[in-house]
Amino acid sequence: MGFDVYDTTLRDGAQQEGMNLSVADKLAIAPLLDELGVGYIEGGWPGAVPKDTEFFARAAKELELRHAVLAAFGATRKAGVVASQDPQVRALLDSGAPVVTLVAKSDIRHVERALRTDRVEGLAMIADTVAFLVSEGRRVFVDAEHFFDGYLFDPAFALDAARAAADAGAEAVVLCDTNGGMLPDQVTEIVGAVRDALGPDVRLGMHAHNDSGCAVANTIAAVNAGAEHIQGTVNGYGERTGNADLLTVVANLELKLGRHVLAGDGLTEASRIAHAISEHTNISPYGRQPYVGASAFAHKAGLHASAIKVDADLYQHIDPRLVGNDMRMLVSDMAGRASIELKGRELGFDLAGQSELLGRVTHRVKDAEAQGYTFDAADASFELLLREEVSGTRLSYFTVESWRSIVERHGSRGADTSSEATVKLTAGGERIVSTGEGNGPVNALDHALRQALLRVYPELEEFELIDFKVRILDNSLGTDAITRVLIETTDGETSWSTVGVGPNLIEASWEALTDSAVYGLLKAGVEPR
Amino acid sequence: MGFDVYDTTLRDGAQQEGMNLSVADKLAIAPLLDELGVGYIEGGWPGAVPKDTEFFARAAKELELRHAVLAAFGATRKAGVVASQDPQVRALLDSGAPVVTLVAKSDIRHVERALRTDRVEGLAMIADTVAFLVSEGRRVFVDAEHFFDGYLFDPAFALDAARAAADAGAEAVVLCDTNGGMLPDQVTEIVGAVRDALGPDVRLGMHAHNDSGCAVANTIAAVNAGAEHIQGTVNGYGERTGNADLLTVVANLELKLGRHVLAGDGLTEASRIAHAISEHTNISPYGRQPYVGASAFAHKAGLHASAIKVDADLYQHIDPRLVGNDMRMLVSDMAGRASIELKGRELGFDLAGQSELLGRVTHRVKDAEAQGYTFDAADASFELLLREEVSGTRLSYFTVESWRSIVERHGSRGADTSSEATVKLTAGGERIVSTGEGNGPVNALDHALRQALLRVYPELEEFELIDFKVRILDNSLGTDAITRVLIETTDGETSWSTVGVGPNLIEASWEALTDSAVYGLLKAGVEPR
Repeated sequence: MGFDVYDTTLRDGAQQEGMNLSVADKLAIAPLLDELGVGYIEGGWPGAVPKDTEFFARAAKELELRHAVLAAFGATRKAGVVASQDPQVRALLDSGAPVVTLVAKSDIRHVERALRTDRVEGLAMIADTVAFLVSEGRRVFVDAEHFFDGYLFDPAFALDAARAAADAGAEAVVLCDTNGGMLPDQVTEIVGAVRDALGPDVRLGMHAHNDSGCAVANTIAAVNAGAEHIQGTVNGYGERTGNADLLTVVANLELKLGRHVLAGDGLTEASRIAHAISEHTNISPYGRQPYVGASAFAHKAGLHASAIKVDADLYQHIDPRLVGNDMRMLVSDMAGRASIELKGRELGFDLAGQSELLGRVTHRVKDAEAQGYTFDAADASFELLLREEVSGTRLSYFTVESWRSIVERHGSRGADTSSEATVKLTAGGERIVSTGEGNGPVNALDHALRQALLRVYPELEEFELIDFKVRILDNSLGTDAITRVLIETTDGETSWSTVGVGPNLIEASWEALTDSAVYGLLKAGVEPR
Repeated sequence: MGFDVYDTTLRDGAQQEGMNLSVADKLAIAPLLDELGVGYIEGGWPGAVPKDTEFFARAAKELELRHAVLAAFGATRKAGVVASQDPQVRALLDSGAPVVTLVAKSDIRHVERALRTDRVEGLAMIADTVAFLVSEGRRVFVDAEHFFDGYLFDPAFALDAARAAADAGAEAVVLCDTNGGMLPDQVTEIVGAVRDALGPDVRLGMHAHNDSGCAVANTIAAVNAGAEHIQGTVNGYGERTGNADLLTVVANLELKLGRHVLAGDGLTEASRIAHAISEHTNISPYGRQPYVGASAFAHKAGLHASAIKVDADLYQHIDPRLVGNDMRMLVSDMAGRASIELKGRELGFDLAGQSELLGRVTHRVKDAEAQGYTFDAADASFELLLREEVSGTRLSYFTVESWRSIVERHGSRGADTSSEATVKLTAGGERIVSTGEGNGPVNALDHALRQALLRVYPELEEFELIDFKVRILDNSLGTDAITRVLIETTDGETSWSTVGVGPNLIEASWEALTDSAVYGLLKAGVEPR
């Protein structure tokens, strides 16, 4: 057996304050976890959470995972009930997930005070539930909840609970620092003691929370003490201070301890995957996140600037490309040029040697990013900017005279709200006035713009808006803050993303909508009429 | 000698991307660090950074520190120069700081490639500069830069550098993991080896960065291996992934390892101090920060909530009051009755035993969350819902007849966009029509609503919108998706959050805006007029 990398972003990570994942979000995140190369994806608690029941049902039909296996999370049977007749346990079976991870109480105080039962029944609940699920053909992991605190209070019961799980057929007993308060030395000592007590045939795992700021170190300590199964969440999402950040743990294991624990070479995509997942969770990425953060390899120019250029390896703990990240020099524009040259090449523009042009584009990109634009997620907008600098002009498919968007409601809460937009523009030599309705101001504007342009550019018929994201960039200013809108459009075959920024959300949306139309026409090879 | 807690927020912390501290900021932060009880405050690099020269000049006159001593940071003399004649070294003396912390190269590769000199001169630079400053009556610490990487490459030189510092009179030799890539076991091993090599009379220190996510654990590992001086920054500010978070390190040392390292009992004020400092740095506090983060003791899981009611200590690693923080219950679709009961208690409603009411509230919360509402980030909206169920009616401060929001732009990109909103409502028996302008549709609506209500409720004058967040809930439907708006409002003393949901962003914003006004008036004890 290899080493288990078990992701619980969709279950324990979703406990984070402010996070609320829909089934669609989960279905979008799972393939990204698979791409990273984790072995197991815990999807939720079917039976207990209706959305999670739906997730497993849809995942079975819709997801095609290359590496990862889905795991359903659930609890051991209730006290005094037969496992096969406990509806919560049955729901785990019904989820169809090949792996079931059972949370089991291993701290006697929790057995007595929370479950209100005794140690004999507490152990039986573990053994019975594991045995039943195994007899039904499921692979079972057991999360020994509050293991470390429980072990410190009553080591005999904690070990009995672990033993009950292993003896009944659990593939791994995962020691959980549920309250997250352990320090690495304690983890080393306790995992070692458990290993000695249970013997080498019982596979141990580690599930850490970051309450003492040591979740990553505690996970590494457990691995060094013999654990062969690690649990964590992407970006360290989770309740309170979060879970162990799986990306950091895995990067430490692969790059520093020489243990190849991911399937494939997903680690080189870690930065992109981390950011893509944060788009789905809508939790702003944390710039200082180890390995994958935007600042993780950013150096403020000054003390060592010239030395870094000569000898980068002396100033960074790893090569950032190993995790799909980049070194950035924060003041100098040297780093920017290189990636813009690279991106240009990707889009079919050879900028090498065109130092003046490259400088101009870099300057515009930096300027725009300072205003809040982001081109990482808006390739189409970047290409329009690049084409403009290369050709010296902007393709003009239409000229906007004015637009207006009105939202109104008559009556109190619950009454219908109406949204209407009017666009006046010139295209194909014709002045067009078009009004659209929608269920919101941007939707109405989209309809009005599309209707206006369709007369001259019937190619637009194929285009469809498939994603609309809003991010408020500066939280300290209320509605005075800068808004960034990202729009994704498809023509049925490919899709493209555009960005708009401004203090006014509607204006930012308009910018992204018009860029999207222009880019789509350009891609379709349509000449301005 | 006691234990040195050395804060470098104002120097190394200020290297963080996006941070730019003025002299006034530094003068405001220093007393907060003193209040926390650190022993040393590193103020900057006088001579090299003009703002820092000014900081030390003003600090000498303006700051009254109870516990802490100011330290000036600087470099050893240049190669081939006499220490007393090196202007950079003289500026350290001239700063008047009683402590000087010298950065010294302890990795031979940096001596050869960055300083472009040899090992003999490299060591002499350290010894000479320390000896000169000590002869001038200064206490000297030496930051042995790149010590760990240097030790792994050439242990003899790294040890020689440390020895040169100690022999010349440095009070502490601080081993720096400058690139931040160490793991705790390496730190334990290397600090132990250095201790053995230099003997017990040399005081060792630790300066860690968080590039492998282990800065806190590495600092603790160094202390366990004998270090008696720790460096870090408040909130873990710093270049790249930041420095060791001094608050987390100190809390671990005091609360878990029984080492009293702060002067006074500043730890009980840690949460307030951390947030106050973030106001000066203008870096948003990180909710998941250990110990002091807003989410650090927030519980969401329904599983836990029922037990937390019984026995809070079993569900938190420390008593949050020890660091000036609070336990909070989050209401979410994962929460059952137990967490709603607890949340109610937090808000002053005793729901225990009121099973029918509790069932009704739980049902409404689950229903609302299924529609896209989230209450864990909108306490005020939850309280309004709860009060409505408890009292059977909703407080009616005003009745809305209609509202309208218009955004328009004449001309092409770059032309001014105008936003205007009109609100018609009845309050205090009066029908009021009010129009507001703003830089966006929500801002305009906020102005119109506020203006309309102010005539009857002048208490609203104090309210200010401080945060506005938008989330599109179903990404697969473009602008047809459901939008969730979260608004945070302050009355200058406390703040509250409300939520609005709907297919129309403006309507969702309107809901959150009106809830915010109602809640604010309620909190202020205002009766409907």
